[in-house]
Amino acid sequence: MKVLVIGANGQIGKHVVSLIQKNDKLEAKAMIRKEEQADFFKDLGADVAIVDLEGEIEEIAKAAEDVDAIVFTAGSGPKTGKDKTLMIDLDGAVKTIEAAKQANVKRYIMISSYDTTREAIQSAPESFAPYVVAKHYADEWLRDTDLDYTIIHPGALTNDPGKNQVALAEKVERGEVPREDIARVIVESLLHDSTIGKEFQVVTGNTPVEEAIQSL
Amino acid sequence: MKVLVIGANGQIGKHVVSLIQKNDKLEAKAMIRKEEQADFFKDLGADVAIVDLEGEIEEIAKAAEDVDAIVFTAGSGPKTGKDKTLMIDLDGAVKTIEAAKQANVKRYIMISSYDTTREAIQSAPESFAPYVVAKHYADEWLRDTDLDYTIIHPGALTNDPGKNQVALAEKVERGEVPREDIARVIVESLLHDSTIGKEFQVVTGNTPVEEAIQSL
Repeated sequence: MKVLVIGANGQIGKHVVSLIQKNDKLEAKAMIRKEEQADFFKDLGADVAIVDLEGEIEEIAKAAEDVDAIVFTAGSGPKTGKDKTLMIDLDGAVKTIEAAKQANVKRYIMISSYDTTREAIQSAPESFAPYVVAKHYADEWLRDTDLDYTIIHPGALTNDPGKNQVALAEKVERGEVPREDIARVIVESLLHDSTIGKEFQVVTGNTPVEEAIQSL
Repeated sequence: MKVLVIGANGQIGKHVVSLIQKNDKLEAKAMIRKEEQADFFKDLGADVAIVDLEGEIEEIAKAAEDVDAIVFTAGSGPKTGKDKTLMIDLDGAVKTIEAAKQANVKRYIMISSYDTTREAIQSAPESFAPYVVAKHYADEWLRDTDLDYTIIHPGALTNDPGKNQVALAEKVERGEVPREDIARVIVESLLHDSTIGKEFQVVTGNTPVEEAIQSL
């Protein structure tokens, strides 16, 4: 299964491409914005596509033509200007969903935020709320498609080494989770079609990722 | 027909409430954010509701309980911070649409931007694109409902006195239009059910507003 990783140069994205390249059943195509980001991925043996998420849907669809699945892990992050929140976290995400449709790629894995519900928008601190709004509408757009989607809602992301120990369910207590473990969750989701049509929160817990995914 | 004007304290909103109050068939309820904005509307004989668009849907729905139509003319404007673009132009708008459903108000008139298509997003200047994105998704949300909607796409807004002379169609050449004339278009749309389910661009032209609306 060939997987287009959108936002490959991000902190989760790099872990995802690395893990995919280590797995016999998967191969990665890293979608990145700049040529100078390519070497990291080429060194891993991954394919590379240079596409700007602020560009046309058709360019993204072209990058998706030869893949079987798309992982969206791009993010302006909550600390960038809110213009990028609108252009990347909302519109960039929606464009990749539309590109998936155009390219006939059914499988789509979205890395969302821990809680993107209406209630989360209303209770978010003022500086964070716009980011939650953007993720809320991107998730809603995806749910409204016929794609085979999975929406992953990670807890507070850290750069700690992955523990391969998570709590994973529709609702889990708020907590931290290493980006490397989220990458594992993405890879196991790709490998288990039982995750199709589901969404779940993930934080550090007591269950190995594969087992947690299988018991969903 | 009682009309909840959301964003009543804005530049178009004030014209709308004034015109509604002058019309025998219509009465206005001005939805505003602050008590100190109320006098202008009370002096016009309009009803007033103090509701923050960044608050809960239920509060907006409560303001809509006794009305027959909603006009959304709130806007952070393209010059405010992009956080407000997300919170008002996108999420605020969507919350009023959801409030309309909750309050069983079928008629909904959205004041959009001149062009909110995908093509307009891609060709917009970088500083303006996030605003177009926000309006794009708000319009999409409305189209996806069963509400009796009208979406008005005005040209470049000016504070010139209204001329009551417009060009109004699905597509018109880019141009200016006084806010007062957009207010007339809103009022005539409320009075003509033939505008239900339609959207159109408006700029200054050669046809009186009522005639332009009737010939849609």
